[in-house]
Amino acid sequence: MRALLFDVFGTCVDWRTSMMREAERFGLPPQLAVAWRDEYQPQLETVRSGQRPWVNLDVLHEIGLNRVLRAMDLTLPKADRVELVRGWHRLDPWPDVVAGLTRLKETFIIAPCSNGHIAQSVNLAKFAKLPWDAILGAEIAHAYKPDPRVYRESVYALGLEPDEVCMVAAHRDDLRAAAAVGLQTAFVERFGEDPGPPFDADFVAHDFEELLR
Amino acid sequence: MRALLFDVFGTCVDWRTSMMREAERFGLPPQLAVAWRDEYQPQLETVRSGQRPWVNLDVLHEIGLNRVLRAMDLTLPKADRVELVRGWHRLDPWPDVVAGLTRLKETFIIAPCSNGHIAQSVNLAKFAKLPWDAILGAEIAHAYKPDPRVYRESVYALGLEPDEVCMVAAHRDDLRAAAAVGLQTAFVERFGEDPGPPFDADFVAHDFEELLR
Repeated sequence: MRALLFDVFGTCVDWRTSMMREAERFGLPPQLAVAWRDEYQPQLETVRSGQRPWVNLDVLHEIGLNRVLRAMDLTLPKADRVELVRGWHRLDPWPDVVAGLTRLKETFIIAPCSNGHIAQSVNLAKFAKLPWDAILGAEIAHAYKPDPRVYRESVYALGLEPDEVCMVAAHRDDLRAAAAVGLQTAFVERFGEDPGPPFDADFVAHDFEELLR
Repeated sequence: MRALLFDVFGTCVDWRTSMMREAERFGLPPQLAVAWRDEYQPQLETVRSGQRPWVNLDVLHEIGLNRVLRAMDLTLPKADRVELVRGWHRLDPWPDVVAGLTRLKETFIIAPCSNGHIAQSVNLAKFAKLPWDAILGAEIAHAYKPDPRVYRESVYALGLEPDEVCMVAAHRDDLRAAAAVGLQTAFVERFGEDPGPPFDADFVAHDFEELLR
């Protein structure tokens, strides 16, 4: 195994607590964060289905936010909406992540394989001190997970074969899609993630420290 | 200024000394390194001119190596040629680079904007301990510098405007092309680099420590 690819939202960072804080910063109810995240898969699906050309996650997050604000009968000025969308660029890492990634980086190439775009991934890495070797994922493939192109393009960009790479995620549907194109898989349990059906990952861990072992 | 983009070959790493060492490792005369580098621009030009579709630098390096070996009346088994091409993934940094980049990273997003592809850039960063925030450059644009698309796509990937980004290079033609699309520019003098005509960069430094100041 030469490289580890990581899901980010939920797996590396606690989007729920962070975005509840962001909502409150703009005088909005914290439960907006969860309602907003519920718009995530439907908005990605507009791209996966071909209904919309590939646009980055800031665009899809803003569309989702507008829908949630309307549904909750709330309003927010455009400048604040833009700034709130940028909240997804400043999410707190789970407590084990920075130390775990730093250690894993000594042995493996580590990179996000996220549905976040390059700018979001870089800004988040600066904020949360995630020591990535490269930024891979949706933007280089112009597709959204679990579209197999996202995993394939990420592996190809590293000049590796799929079985030399392990996908790490807190969502089994992400791992199932990665396994289908030949990657190894590691499931990490995270609070409130993974509503999906069971999947036998090659590795299972409670956090990145255990993953290391 | 929010981000610094770096040329790599010659600016961050001493390809000359490193590739002379690689040539000797395969029983070849060290001057092969310089003759091989002389094939660099002509091979890039086959892509820039549209004569060849975009292929990565390993492919162009192997074509150049085969030409140089023939011209010097030398032979090398295929497996050794592949391994020698991989020599461009393990080049020594100039002495000021790792400390300089580490300090610059505290304030700016730092990324290569090189003609090297993602796999080469990642492997080189692992070897030379270059602490990049992201890997940008030729592969994300499917073009080769000084094609303006390489600078534009790298700036766009960061979600920034061109004047928020500074291109750092030891070659004035690289800086001239970056300036033409609106980037700020910093010239760093390196031994044996920059045979090009003069260009007034926004910043001039002898090394990355001076650049920091």
